[in-house]
Amino acid sequence: MNDGALGPGPRTRVRRLATKANYDERVIYSILDEARLCHVAAMVRERPVALPTLHARDGRTLYLHGSPSNEILKSITRDGEAFVTATLYDGLRLARSGFESSIAYRSVTVVGAAREVTDMTEKARVLSLFVERVLAGRAEEVRASSEQELRLTMVVAVDIDEASAKVSSGPTEDDEHDAALPIWSGTVPARLVFGAPVPDSNGAMATGDIEVPPSVAALLRES
Amino acid sequence: MNDGALGPGPRTRVRRLATKANYDERVIYSILDEARLCHVAAMVRERPVALPTLHARDGRTLYLHGSPSNEILKSITRDGEAFVTATLYDGLRLARSGFESSIAYRSVTVVGAAREVTDMTEKARVLSLFVERVLAGRAEEVRASSEQELRLTMVVAVDIDEASAKVSSGPTEDDEHDAALPIWSGTVPARLVFGAPVPDSNGAMATGDIEVPPSVAALLRES
Repeated sequence: MNDGALGPGPRTRVRRLATKANYDERVIYSILDEARLCHVAAMVRERPVALPTLHARDGRTLYLHGSPSNEILKSITRDGEAFVTATLYDGLRLARSGFESSIAYRSVTVVGAAREVTDMTEKARVLSLFVERVLAGRAEEVRASSEQELRLTMVVAVDIDEASAKVSSGPTEDDEHDAALPIWSGTVPARLVFGAPVPDSNGAMATGDIEVPPSVAALLRES
Repeated sequence: MNDGALGPGPRTRVRRLATKANYDERVIYSILDEARLCHVAAMVRERPVALPTLHARDGRTLYLHGSPSNEILKSITRDGEAFVTATLYDGLRLARSGFESSIAYRSVTVVGAAREVTDMTEKARVLSLFVERVLAGRAEEVRASSEQELRLTMVVAVDIDEASAKVSSGPTEDDEHDAALPIWSGTVPARLVFGAPVPDSNGAMATGDIEVPPSVAALLRES
């Protein structure tokens, strides 16, 4: 593969609608980093399953985490390989035919070697990455992880050995015979917006009195 | 299983954070129907993979569709069983510790018998369901499917034999020792909103002159 290209390789080559394929690592990383969750495929009880989870990227490593009894994490570390996919829904692409109508989306597929991270310092660093993934700026606002919490968390590092992106965007692509039909054709963009924060009311201290932290304020400004 | 309960069964029992588990079919269907895409797990070239795709539910049947050369669809019809998961991102749950901080989400897992739908009348009906899934009210606005288009589309029916939902919502759950810390704790809801439609400018007819159709107008009113 060329510099800056993460594919195609045998498991990530886009086989359907190959015109939508992209192997540029900048495109792949931007989708991975924007996606707020991913799905991990694995063999569990001898069958293929996929479950949603959080992910955090650091350079060419993708981290996953969960309980030490998480069956997907146990399966991929046992197999030594992980398949991760992340998808962003970007809106509607409404052609004049049902056949050409679909959604706008960006998706990424990553395949790579998976190994458990056991070093406690490394685990603490990665767990901070996850807090930052949940909300940028939040890691420095929360209480630091305890040793007990680190022990209760399994962290898996996946090397981004091979990856591909698939992007469906731009104007609708009507069949040429349909273009003259008096049917509206076009796209409708979608985006995620965040609403008013709801402070916890259960704490010993009424957190409603504490100002909304910088991390949440920044999120709401951008939203 | 009881009336109205779709699980738990051996493949859909929620094993981690079982307090978040729900097997009520109304909850499961509402999540499936709100999710704008799903991920299907399958064996492809002897390895577990998962890819995003659209889904359409009709009663206790979940439909998938794609090209006849789609490897996931070929794999699940060959195996006779499908594993489908759909996840909705609902926002942030920001506790005082990183350990208890995460996202609000609703996810569903469906396992069931998979078979290809080959009857042309049935395929036409299911393809209309997919258009409705992309946008409610759109099926009656678009040109009807041609026989050629039906032949170019593979439709797979998955019986919802067993399913489970996992819902993470409500206030943050801080550890009791953390509740007194002077750190803001709370939730931030997220939702998808649709923006201004962009009419196609490539057609032989300038569709900008055609009014935005009822389906799109309704979407924007609700958004």
